[in-house]
Parts: sequence; structure tokens; C-alpha cells
Amino acid sequence: MSNVVFFHAGCPVCVAAEQTVADALRDDVEKVHLGIQKDRLGEAEAAGVRSVPALVIDGQPFHINHGADLSDLK
Amino acid sequence: MSNVVFFHAGCPVCVAAEQTVADALRDDVEKVHLGIQKDRLGEAEAAGVRSVPALVIDGQPFHINHGADLSDLK
Repeated sequence: MSNVVFFHAGCPVCVAAEQTVADALRDDVEKVHLGIQKDRLGEAEAAGVRSVPALVIDGQPFHINHGADLSDLK
Repeated sequence: MSNVVFFHAGCPVCVAAEQTVADALRDDVEKVHLGIQKDRLGEAEAAGVRSVPALVIDGQPFHINHGADLSDLK
């Protein structure tokens, strides 16, 4: 069982990644909309997330395509 | 049930994505090493893959971080 967080911003690239990759994972995925949940930006950044959509699995960041830079969500 | 192909080149970024994302998917994943299986390069390119590691799920490309450009594998 892994700890999986999917960071997104509701953009089209994010939605495609959510429905196709994040929702296809065996583990439960916590979904965090960084445009709304700005209090989670620091956590994403600390995990090495530079853009969304991104998965953080057991602390490792995996950027999926490119929707928006994290800096654009601040 | 989706058709899932994971294109990679055996690089460290590829291995991390394989073990953490590709292997965590519910569906069976076909793994294609484009450094070895160069006859599959055209298929990856046609699906819109520009770099590895990448997942192609039902024809849609999802680049995961960045290991190598496809052009470097030709």
C-alpha cells in the first residue's frame, strides 16, 4: 500500500491525467486541487513537484505531461 | 480494461517510473524498451510520445518526468 497524492489544477491536461492515469492506479489516490487548496502548495513543493498534474507516490514526484507550473498557482 | 503500453529506455528515470507508476496500475502494462525495440519507435511517435518514460493509455500519451528524448533513441 503506497501513499499516493495527485496534485492538479483542474486544467484539461490535469483532467485527462486524472481520469486516465490517477484513476487507473490500484491504490487509493488523494486528489488535491492546488488552485483551490493553496495551503497544500508547500507540501507539493517540498516533494519536488514543479508542475501539475503530478503524482507523489511515497514521497517521489512524477510529473505527467504539463498543465501549469506550480509558480502560476501561487 | 484499457490498452496500456509503457515506453522506456532503461534509464534511471524510466526505472523509477516503471516501478512506481506503471507497476501500480490496475491494468496489465506492456513494457517496451525503445533502446532495444527500435521497431516500436514509429508506434510511440504516432501516439504522440516525445520522450521516455511515457505511458500510452488507449492511444493517449502521458509523459512521466523526463528521461530521454525520443530523438536520442534513434
